[in-house]
Amino acid sequence: MAGMTATVGSPIRPLQWRGSVDGHLELLDQTRLPTEVVRLACRDVETLWEAIRNLRVRGAPAIGCAAAYGVVLAFQPASRGSAADWLEAVERGCNRLAESRPTAVNLFWALDRMRRKAQSIRGTAAREAGEALMAEAHAIRDEDAAMCRAIGRNGAELIRDGMGVLTHCNAGALATSEYGTALALMYAAHERGRRFKVFADETRPLLQGARLTAWELQQAGIDVTLICDSMAAQVMREGRVQLVVVGADRIAANGDAANKIGTYGLAVIAKAHNVPMYVAAPRTTFDLATPAGAAIPIEQRAGDEISHGFGRQTGPHGIACYNPAFDVTPAELLAGIVTEHGIIRPVNRDMVGKMLSDKD
Amino acid sequence: MAGMTATVGSPIRPLQWRGSVDGHLELLDQTRLPTEVVRLACRDVETLWEAIRNLRVRGAPAIGCAAAYGVVLAFQPASRGSAADWLEAVERGCNRLAESRPTAVNLFWALDRMRRKAQSIRGTAAREAGEALMAEAHAIRDEDAAMCRAIGRNGAELIRDGMGVLTHCNAGALATSEYGTALALMYAAHERGRRFKVFADETRPLLQGARLTAWELQQAGIDVTLICDSMAAQVMREGRVQLVVVGADRIAANGDAANKIGTYGLAVIAKAHNVPMYVAAPRTTFDLATPAGAAIPIEQRAGDEISHGFGRQTGPHGIACYNPAFDVTPAELLAGIVTEHGIIRPVNRDMVGKMLSDKD
Repeated sequence: MAGMTATVGSPIRPLQWRGSVDGHLELLDQTRLPTEVVRLACRDVETLWEAIRNLRVRGAPAIGCAAAYGVVLAFQPASRGSAADWLEAVERGCNRLAESRPTAVNLFWALDRMRRKAQSIRGTAAREAGEALMAEAHAIRDEDAAMCRAIGRNGAELIRDGMGVLTHCNAGALATSEYGTALALMYAAHERGRRFKVFADETRPLLQGARLTAWELQQAGIDVTLICDSMAAQVMREGRVQLVVVGADRIAANGDAANKIGTYGLAVIAKAHNVPMYVAAPRTTFDLATPAGAAIPIEQRAGDEISHGFGRQTGPHGIACYNPAFDVTPAELLAGIVTEHGIIRPVNRDMVGKMLSDKD
Repeated sequence: MAGMTATVGSPIRPLQWRGSVDGHLELLDQTRLPTEVVRLACRDVETLWEAIRNLRVRGAPAIGCAAAYGVVLAFQPASRGSAADWLEAVERGCNRLAESRPTAVNLFWALDRMRRKAQSIRGTAAREAGEALMAEAHAIRDEDAAMCRAIGRNGAELIRDGMGVLTHCNAGALATSEYGTALALMYAAHERGRRFKVFADETRPLLQGARLTAWELQQAGIDVTLICDSMAAQVMREGRVQLVVVGADRIAANGDAANKIGTYGLAVIAKAHNVPMYVAAPRTTFDLATPAGAAIPIEQRAGDEISHGFGRQTGPHGIACYNPAFDVTPAELLAGIVTEHGIIRPVNRDMVGKMLSDKD
């Protein structure tokens, strides 16, 4: 059960490039977790395309990093060709990878950056181009890791000795290049020797909390306890939780935060128990063109995620299901938003604008 | 998929005696729901013992009724014997059935009542005794059904045309002789021609909402939509719910109500959205010797209900789980408690005492 790259005590890495320009991308197959730890060697674009498509790698930052390395895989067959050959191979690879998850913003962002890099060195011999593309892919990964580390550093102060910390879904190492966003606070506090206990909501319907968060914290040697989503209120009432930290999929200009379904209810419950709730997210998660959470569309997903959970039919035949994938937590329910630049606190339009514009 | 005794439009019956004293008890096997509707003919005490033990029949009132009929099954082999023979058979049957679910209060209550009846007619010929025991078992069932009907009648006013009603777990026909407690309000409103929509929480970890509530409401032709527990807050925020109704396992003298885990969090969320929440329960659920909810012990159940839901491993190997089976909703979060005698509203010690003592 040992992780592919982690020893107990350090956060897992969901993806790693092995070797030099002619190497390959090793992915931890997240669809096999938590029962099996399977390493998948991606040696061509199609293998990676399938892995992204089928959620073997998931989490916006992790997908972006994987796609960047995918461009190096696309380059490889043309590594002895002409300058036109490698550029064409790279373009073809970018186009193919862009079809893997049609709505993944980080995927497009990473592919665009790799494409711009390729264009900027067009006409260069394949050998040099390969090195440049490899370096750009590593840079994308390293910047993501640095961003996660900065979030962890900025938020670690929130976790004090003896605390109980509750999280929902997976905003962890598995969703990024390493270290995560919400879980970055926990890894950073753990590295600083703080002793605390994490409660992980299982996060129905897709169980990212049970399958991924519980697993990666366990791998890192952090004290983690799995609960059902419906137990969070009781756990708080019993005084077992002093802090809630979650990730976000999109944050509006006023600080309203869209995240996995259940986050909003958790925020209401945390408020009722005077437990501060923080969102941890990089500035790329902020969408300043969206004034407030009401303008964020809520994705509706297929009902069989509820009625046929875990590969088994759990609801009656033909039952109607309502399956919103996300909800929006209003800024006023958040104690703060931890970013790589610092903590936005209190959460409102002015403070969000101030934190982000300071760093332009 | 048609229910064993229900046509679409009327609530399901989980148990029915077939024939006269020499007949048998037919149970709807609730472990097979919602995918299979299987009738189980109990023709002897052992078959019924196994059915109660393995939750084929569940819900305190339903278990009580089943056990009462079980005493008739115990009597049958002695129906041509002496007065001593049948009394001994009845006693043996009561003792055996009492071992089926060691903590089920209604089970003991029903068996004690049957035993008292048997003692009161000791020395009677078997033929007459059998009729008396049969009548007593039917009376237990009929009183339960009348109690459920009265709860439904008293609470039906709460459900108005166009409403969304949310419920948690299964306090339905399947848990009683028929009609249920929380769901009795819905059946009664449905019979009165009201049009409303029900949201059923799936109720992790054991999914009574998905497996049982969604199924029985669907069978009765009531508009029901299944959601995950974590979606209730979002559904309320979207204005889809105007009433929450749940059952209870035990109610303290001040109105604090213990019920399936998740009920308390739902109450906090309902309060935040100004959605009134009612408990529906018979007076036998009140435990006046318990002054307040803090004195109600919370059963802790095995962690594998969480980490190995639905026969599959959903959490990592060796993960710690915290699995409280119940929580306690404080009286101040309840808009009222619907009983067979009327609605306790507001919910406090005085009003609880008044409603119950009026009916002594």
